[in-house]
Formats: sequence, structure tokens, C-alpha cells
Amino acid sequence: MHISELTHPNQLKGLSIRELEEVSRQIREKHLQTVATSGGHLGPGLGVVELTVALYSTLDLDKDRVIWDVGHQAYPHKMLTGRYHDFHTLRQKDGVAGYLKRSESRFDHFGAGHASTSISAGLGMALARDAKGEDFKVVSIIGDGALTGGMALEAINHAGHLPHTKLMVVLNDNEMSISPNVGAISRYLNKVRLSSPMQFLTDNLEEQIKHLPFLGDSLTPEMERVKEGMKRLVVPKVGAVIEELGFKYFGPIDGHNLQELIDTFKQAEKVQGPVFVHVSTTKGKGYDLAEKDQVGYHAQSPFNLSTGKAYPSSKPKPPSYSKVFAHTLTTLAKENPHIVGITAAMATGTGLDKLQAKLPKQYVDVGIAEQHAVTLAAGMACEGMRPVVAIYSTFLQRGYDQIIHDVCIQKLPVFFCLDRAGIVGADGPTHQGMYDIAYLRCIPNLVIMAPKDEAELQQMLVTGVDYTDGAIAMRYPRGNGIGVPLMEEGWESLEIGKGEILRSGDDVLLLGYGSMVYPALQTAELLHEHGIEATVVNARFVKPMDTELILPLAQRIGKVVTMEEGCLMGGFGSAVAEALMDNNVLVPLKRLGVPDMLVDHATPEQSTVDLGLTPAQMAADIMASLFKAESAVAHGVS
Amino acid sequence: MHISELTHPNQLKGLSIRELEEVSRQIREKHLQTVATSGGHLGPGLGVVELTVALYSTLDLDKDRVIWDVGHQAYPHKMLTGRYHDFHTLRQKDGVAGYLKRSESRFDHFGAGHASTSISAGLGMALARDAKGEDFKVVSIIGDGALTGGMALEAINHAGHLPHTKLMVVLNDNEMSISPNVGAISRYLNKVRLSSPMQFLTDNLEEQIKHLPFLGDSLTPEMERVKEGMKRLVVPKVGAVIEELGFKYFGPIDGHNLQELIDTFKQAEKVQGPVFVHVSTTKGKGYDLAEKDQVGYHAQSPFNLSTGKAYPSSKPKPPSYSKVFAHTLTTLAKENPHIVGITAAMATGTGLDKLQAKLPKQYVDVGIAEQHAVTLAAGMACEGMRPVVAIYSTFLQRGYDQIIHDVCIQKLPVFFCLDRAGIVGADGPTHQGMYDIAYLRCIPNLVIMAPKDEAELQQMLVTGVDYTDGAIAMRYPRGNGIGVPLMEEGWESLEIGKGEILRSGDDVLLLGYGSMVYPALQTAELLHEHGIEATVVNARFVKPMDTELILPLAQRIGKVVTMEEGCLMGGFGSAVAEALMDNNVLVPLKRLGVPDMLVDHATPEQSTVDLGLTPAQMAADIMASLFKAESAVAHGVS
Repeated sequence: MHISELTHPNQLKGLSIRELEEVSRQIREKHLQTVATSGGHLGPGLGVVELTVALYSTLDLDKDRVIWDVGHQAYPHKMLTGRYHDFHTLRQKDGVAGYLKRSESRFDHFGAGHASTSISAGLGMALARDAKGEDFKVVSIIGDGALTGGMALEAINHAGHLPHTKLMVVLNDNEMSISPNVGAISRYLNKVRLSSPMQFLTDNLEEQIKHLPFLGDSLTPEMERVKEGMKRLVVPKVGAVIEELGFKYFGPIDGHNLQELIDTFKQAEKVQGPVFVHVSTTKGKGYDLAEKDQVGYHAQSPFNLSTGKAYPSSKPKPPSYSKVFAHTLTTLAKENPHIVGITAAMATGTGLDKLQAKLPKQYVDVGIAEQHAVTLAAGMACEGMRPVVAIYSTFLQRGYDQIIHDVCIQKLPVFFCLDRAGIVGADGPTHQGMYDIAYLRCIPNLVIMAPKDEAELQQMLVTGVDYTDGAIAMRYPRGNGIGVPLMEEGWESLEIGKGEILRSGDDVLLLGYGSMVYPALQTAELLHEHGIEATVVNARFVKPMDTELILPLAQRIGKVVTMEEGCLMGGFGSAVAEALMDNNVLVPLKRLGVPDMLVDHATPEQSTVDLGLTPAQMAADIMASLFKAESAVAHGVS
Repeated sequence: MHISELTHPNQLKGLSIRELEEVSRQIREKHLQTVATSGGHLGPGLGVVELTVALYSTLDLDKDRVIWDVGHQAYPHKMLTGRYHDFHTLRQKDGVAGYLKRSESRFDHFGAGHASTSISAGLGMALARDAKGEDFKVVSIIGDGALTGGMALEAINHAGHLPHTKLMVVLNDNEMSISPNVGAISRYLNKVRLSSPMQFLTDNLEEQIKHLPFLGDSLTPEMERVKEGMKRLVVPKVGAVIEELGFKYFGPIDGHNLQELIDTFKQAEKVQGPVFVHVSTTKGKGYDLAEKDQVGYHAQSPFNLSTGKAYPSSKPKPPSYSKVFAHTLTTLAKENPHIVGITAAMATGTGLDKLQAKLPKQYVDVGIAEQHAVTLAAGMACEGMRPVVAIYSTFLQRGYDQIIHDVCIQKLPVFFCLDRAGIVGADGPTHQGMYDIAYLRCIPNLVIMAPKDEAELQQMLVTGVDYTDGAIAMRYPRGNGIGVPLMEEGWESLEIGKGEILRSGDDVLLLGYGSMVYPALQTAELLHEHGIEATVVNARFVKPMDTELILPLAQRIGKVVTMEEGCLMGGFGSAVAEALMDNNVLVPLKRLGVPDMLVDHATPEQSTVDLGLTPAQMAADIMASLFKAESAVAHGVS
């Protein structure tokens, strides 16, 4: 049977190992071809092909629930659950999503995009099942990277305490997050993984046996026998930590051996309480280049399958914001040994791998642990260091309480750098950086800013490092800069809370924040073509806001437009509304940004159009809403 | 030496065990007297008197950093670090804070009020120390309850991976959070704690030895000797899980034996990497009643030391919001078996202990694990349950990403009940429920509401349980209700997004949200005395807002005031400003609430006065800001 003929995952049940191997081969082929063509996550999915096929051949997918953590490794799952034929639309607008999505398939039992949620969700389903007297299996699949996230450990702590709640946790242990894992849990798992039970013993036991008071250095034959027996005693200790936490442990097993996987899953499914199956996989399995460069092939833009190289872009692009951030921070850190860059398992994404390469002592990767990252930074700030916490806007949501409780309440000088703020494109709703302006703005003792381009990012980086009167946050977008010249040195701090006028005009005041400043300028040009002259202000700071600059302009010009790449509720435009109202400047305000809705996966350009945030759309919108009355009046007069 | 003569904690160093015992006795006495007089946390501090005295006698407090998790057990620390003489001002306005506070003392190295932060903060300090080439000890003290919080586990994972970073973690193991602990980690610790090393072995080993192939049921004398030897091999396994995670383990030790504590701390302080000292303490130690009722005496209002009973209040008070919440939820849960109440270790605080008592199967305590609580609820909602997550406003900050990513993006019907929203009083800045309106308002697929009184809370509880088109949140204040009659049954859902007019007048529109609705009515009465007639609206919902009701009123009346017990930035008034601006209703708006600052500990009444939120202050404020111009004009005319 070819996988394209598979209409239901339960059809895997009847297949032989040989046939399942063939299905696996077909999945891997389609996976490679699709990602090479459309881009997407490569290594994670390739690593779990056999795991998925084997698991699904033991379950009844009409009732059993499988919950994939993060979901970027669930491409094989998608192909097996009705999306093989549409798989070429992966991550494209209106196509198959890059993560799981409940609205996309009844087999996607829980959507995700952030790590470490699958055990909590699975346990919730298991408890609901038991409460309702239903009968189905729940399987939560989690990576060894995600397992170090605090909420996964909270969930293990809870599940391990419920001996009669049937729940299977499958650890997809590939020794990696996006980058190699850090942390004691990962080291422990690695120790377990690398050692056959016998090897594991030898180190510990042989040495210790020598110190038994009644034994000499040489063992009698009888004592040799005792030693062998003792080895057998200690075999179950391989998963001792897991077992101490209340789980029955199976493993480690070879994640690319279908027979071993099936046998183990079948055994584990019989356990009536929490059970933990430790599966050893190779990220990028089956594609040589991806196996060798697991970081590089975690996710890919379209590439040539035979060379493994990304297709060159048609024209040279400016450097990404992340790259400028990393480069500039590294330069600053060379001069100031107190600067430390902190990442939560996103070294390559944030660019901090550059800092690590140059100044490893001024770099910390805490693993997938945003909460800890923030409070660790708070501790460092107490001691006079200058911690720079680089976390994507969407992932910083994980450290929200820590920003309030550990940093801002204590007015500690921690510098938050929020990468991927705004529209993120193909990653979709779980990754959109939409909420940070709103969720940060309400916190006291926090300065919030956004650069209009990559050169201003450099200045703001200096500003943030220099600022010590509390915490400070900077957001910047995904993708490439504007292409403005960068400075190699001689940066100066910006004045906190001061914006700048970029263009003057008497008809309307356009207030741009961060990535929307250039679009504001372009909008002004389009308005100019219609005889409307705009003043354009780069707000720079949403908090404190430059009311000295903005309010008199608003009062004089009489019409205000705000532009932001973020949610309108509570965001930058909301802050402007507050300022106008608080100061009794009662002039019309048009707030442009992201309305109260989720933004689905698409290219950033498509999302921008869908949201009406292109300069042309904004110009039309402004004319319709702020100049309609006047033109109507003009009409009436004429 | 009497503790009152102690001017520096380093003076403990010279004292004998007998003298340290005397100091401990004096601390305990003062602790009891103060809490009995002023109220505060009782059990936690009494449990760590010896731990504190012993630890401080081994440290140099001029340089070493001690970080107390949560801080509610740090009263002995406060007495030993210069605050003995002021200790009677505990938790009173301008007095000694109930938690640690960097601004209060140079010995308070890290403030806290939420759990599980101390290891992250301590590790940050330790890394900073090493980066700067300094030399001091860092000791993070954490409770066994707080240890189950995800970020503590993230921190352990990180610290255990840094073998050369000297950090001491002291586990204050009293087997309790506020309530008895739940979870596998707690069970493991308890196993370790209860078993002398030898007992611990016997269960495992004796049984297993029988299965050695070369041994029969009866052991020869030689084999007995082998068994004894094997026991010694396995002794270090007592702290095996901790040791596998990279920490050197000491313990469990008696937390009320000064000599044992001092000896162990001194030994542990020599370890050059991460070390874990497991101290077994009794919550409430030394006060019989508190030892026996550890939940009841966790924290106390003023009480009679000899009877242990709280002083009766002068007049009967209405039931607390928490109590009405719990009672009503229990009634609803009896009728609807799909309702599950979820708490994160706050059974008594939220009132859910009542639900637990009546319907234990519809109650879940996940431990100090707000993240897991939220996503567990999401999993339950997927399966048709009606999870009601009861978490204080300030603690829900911990589950922020989960609310967005796991609940609202998937539009799952989870009901969030935010207790202690608004001003909390003596607990101070770490506990103020100020940010929830702002941090929730930006999230799509979430309805947000607040009742004006305890009867409306009942209605909103029904509303929330009935609502299935996404998530819904309700905030309500700390403390007692208004005293309105409650209903025992026959509740009906409120219409989502509909407010109500409570009073009509043509001069000003007062929009009250939640706990500020009654003050709005009182303010209206005061304005009436000055000839100003107010319309008062109970907004009920901040999202969706009842713009159909509010906008025409605002347009007609021409002056709007919003009143909320929460931060002004991004809050309810901000939502009203957005609505007015978006709909071009350009009328003066006065937003009353909490400005962009921290609110310190004080009584709620004092805080309300300080914030200018009493009806008298608000009436004066409204007259000054919204009616000044007119009266000025009136003056000009006259």
C-alpha cells in the first residue's frame, strides 16, 4: 500500500513490519521534498517517522488521543491523518499549518507552537476521560528539550502523583532543542541513553564493589557471581529518577526500529497508571546532511535536496534585525564585561550564537526555561551585571510574572530584547508577536521602545545597556532590516521617552511605532498625492510616551493616526488614546494595527494585506475615515 | 545576650549552642506575640527559627547572600537583620513589610511574594559573582511546596549543569504549601525524609535479593555479609534524584537541632559546586496549636495567644467573595458533574476546600503550578468538561502564556476566576491584583467581566459556566462582600457584553467596573449634593464592552468618568478611551484607578485613600477636572 492510498491511520494496524517500513520511507520522502520546496521544519519530523508509524499502528486513532508537543515534528502525523495530498501546501496561506491545529483536523487533539505543554494537556484529557467514565488512551509526546520547561515538570509532578490515571508520556529524546540541550535533566537522560544497562552499571558498581569491606581487589569466582547478580539488581535503575517520580519507565529504545517501538508501545499501553517511554531518536534521520548538521537543518527555507543548500535569493537583502542585534551586542559586550546575553534555547534564532562564539563567558543558554531566564537575569542585575534577555515576543509570555514580580517590582535594570515582535508569517497564531506592547505597558518601572530600523536598533541597544533606573524593553520585527547604513561604533544613547519628527505637514499627524514608522512615511507620500500633508513622528517610546512632542502636534493638526504592528487593544494606539483623553486633547484618532483576532499563517506580506496595513490601504483608510466628513462638507459646499 | 541587643547578624558567630537556643526562643516569642497582635504569617516563620539562626551563625552576612523564597517565612531573618525593634509594625503602613524587600534592608537580597523564584535569583547572583571574580556564598532557601513550581525546577536543571558554580540550595521541607503538598516530588521527598537510610534500603533490597538467581530464600552467613555491604553501597541513594540532577546532597537533617544544622551547613558550604541541603522542619514549631493545625495557622489575623482564636470582629460582616464563590460553585457543581474546580495550592484562599469537601471528584489541586493548572484545564475543556480555574489575579500572571497559547488561541471554554483582584492590603506590591484587566484585555477569544457585588458574582459564575464560545474570566476583590442578599438557586446567565444603568442624571456619566460600581453610586450621591447629576453604569463586561449602551450615553451627557480597581494603563478606562475614540465620541474622559506605580502594603482602606479612590476624593476630583472649566466660565459670566 502506498501512503497516498491511506484514508485512515487505523489502516496501519494490518500492515507488516516490512510494509510499515515502506510507509516510513514514503513519509520521509514526501517530508523531504515538501520542506525542500516550501520550507519548514526538517530535522524534528524526520526524527520521528518510525515513532509515529509504530505508535499509530498500536492505537485506535478514532478514539485515542495523541498530543504532540510544539507540533513542529508532527508532519508525519499530518500525512498519516488525511493531509498527505494537501501536504505540498504546508505553511502557505490557507494551506496545511506548520503546527497542529484543532480546527484543521479531528486528529489534532491539541494545538501547540510553544514547548512543554503536551503533558499538561494530556493529563487534562485523561482526567476528563475518567470523570466521564470513558475509555481511550492518551499519549503525550514530548522532546527532551521541551521536558526541561517548567510546566512539563509541573505536569510530571502532578501525573506521577496519580497512580490510577492512565497516561503515556513518550519522550522523543534526540539530545537537542533547536540547539544542543543544556541542563542536568538532559545530561541525565543522555547518561541513560548512552549506556546499555550493563555499561551503566559497570562504572558505578565495579568501583564500589572494590570498597566493600569484605572484598579484596581480586574477586573470587563466587564473588564474581555475586557481582553479576548485583548488576541485574540495578538494571531497573536506568530510569530511576523517572520511576521515583511515579512513572513506570520503559527504555531507552531505538526510535528507528519499528519492531522494538511497537513491542514497547504495546507493553506500555497495558500499564494502568502513568507510564514513560524513553525513545532515542536521531534528529534529521534519513537525510545525511540534516543528521550531520542538526542545528542548521532544524528548520529550512526552500533548498536544493542534493546539495542541501538554500536557494540563493534573487537580490541581496539587508541583514536581519536579529543579526544586527547580535553583532552590535557582541561589540558592546567586548567593551563592557558586565554585559551578559541570555537566551532560552534560541541561540540561533536570536543570533546570540554569535555572542557565544566570541565571548562565551558573557553568554548563557538556560534551555527552554523563559521563567528562569528572566529571574536569573534579575539576580544578575542585583549584582551589577547588565543582563540582556533576548526572547521572542511570543515566548516572553512565559516569563510574564517574572518580569513583573522579580524585575519590575524591584526596579532592577534588566534589558529585554523582544525579537519576532509583530507579524511572523508562516509560523502562524502561536508565534505571532502581537501582545507584547499591551502586556508590558501596564507594568511600572519599565521603559518600552521600538526602533524604526536596524540602525536605530543599534542606538536603542546602547540606550538599553546604559539605562539603569529600572527595566527596559525593546521590540523588533522578524526578518530583514530596511537596508540603512549601520554604524560600527560611536553609538550614543537616545534620550529616554523622546520621539522624533520625520516629516511635517498640517493636515494629519501620523504616529508610527517601531516597524510601522517607514510605512507611515510611505503612507504620508501617498496622502501627499491626494493633497493631504502629514506630519510623521517616530514615537520610539511607548512608555514613557513623548507627550511633550505629541500632544501639541495633535492639538494643532487636529487629526491623529497611530500605526503599530501589534494588537490594538491596550497597545500603542491605546496609549495615545489615553494620553489624548487624559490631557483633554479631543481630536479624532484613527488607530491602525491588529484588531482583536488571531492572525493565521501566511507570508508576512499576505498578513499585512489581510490586516489592511500596507501604505496604500492605510492611506485609503485614513482618507475614508478622517477626511470623509470634510470631503462630504466640501461636496456640500461646492 | 538578648536578641534585642544584637546589632548585626554576624554577632551570632561567637555564640554557643545554648546561647543560640536562647536566641531562637526569643525569636519565637517575638514572632508569636507580633503575629498575635498584628496578624501575619505564623506557621512558616516558626518552622525556620533554628534553620535561620544556625545558617546565619555559619555565614558572613556582610557579604554572603541569602535568598528566601516567597519571604513569608523570613520573619526570623528580619529580626536578626536589624528589624527586631520595629517588628511590631509588621505589615502595617510604613512599617516592616510582610515579605522581603530590597529597599527595606541591605540584607534582603531579593524580594519575593510569589513562590519558586529563589534558586533562579540565587544562581544569577552566583554567576555574577564568578563573572566579576568576587567571593561570597549564595544560599537559596526554598520550601518543598515551592520546589514543585516549574521555574524552581528549571533553575535546578540549570544549576545542576554547572558543576563549578558554587550555590547552596536549602530545602525547607515541612511537607506543606499552605495546604498539604501534592505531587510526585513531594511524595519522593517525604519518602526520603521518613526513611532512615537503612529503612529506605530494606524495602528495595531485601525483596530484590531474594530474586538473585544464585540465592535461596534463606541467606547463608556469608550472603548476609554481602547484603550488609550492599546496603552501604546504596546509602547515598537517599538523595539519588537530587544527585542525578547534579547536586551534592546532604540530608535529611532535623531542622530544629541547631548542632546538626550548623554541622551540616558548614560541611555543605565547603562544596565548590551546587549543593542541596534537605532540612526537615515542622511548620508552626513551638506553638502547639499551629503544629496541630498547620493549614489554619499558616497566616492569621490578630488572635488570642492562649486560646489560638481570632478576636471576634466588632460587628458581623458579610461573607467574603471567595466564600460566596466557593459556595455557589459547589451548588452548581452538584448539578453539573462536568464542572471541575482547579486550584494551584490555594484551596483555602480561593475557598475551593469547600468544593473539595463536598465533591472531591470535581476538585483538583495541582500544587504551586499555575502554568500546568491552566493547560490542564485546556485539556479538560477539549473533552467537554467545564474547568473553573480559581487563581488570584497576581498568581495568574504565572499562567499568562498558557491562557493565550493553550486556551484562547484554541478558543477553549475555560473559566478563569481571579480572586484578590485589585487592592490586597497588607501583602503589598507582590500581591496587588492590579494588572489583570490590562494583561487579559489584549487576548482574543476571551470574555472579561467583574461583578459589582457578591450576588452578581453568583450570576456571573452561572454565566461563566454556561458560556462555551471561548474562554471567559471574572475578577473579584479580596475581602467581604457588600452585604446584599444571596440567592440559593434560580440564577440566570447574564447576557454577554451587556451592562446596566443604575442611576440616571444628565451632567456626567460614571462608568464603574466591578468593585468600583458601589463607590461610583456613592460618588454620584456626593456629586448630587453639589448639584451635579450623574448617570451610573455598571459596565459588567470590559470585553466585549457594551458600546451600544455606553456610547450614546457618553455622547448625550458629554462627560465620562471611569472607575476601576486596577492599573490605568491598558485597563478598563483605557478600553473606554479606545471605544470613544474609535467611534469618534470626542467628549472629556476622566479615568480613575491605579496610576503607573507600585502600591505598597497598608490596609486596603489606607491604600484606597492614598490612591484617591474614596467616593469623596473621586467626587472632588471629578468636580475639579470636569466641572472646573464650567464653573470658571460661570464665574466669568457672573
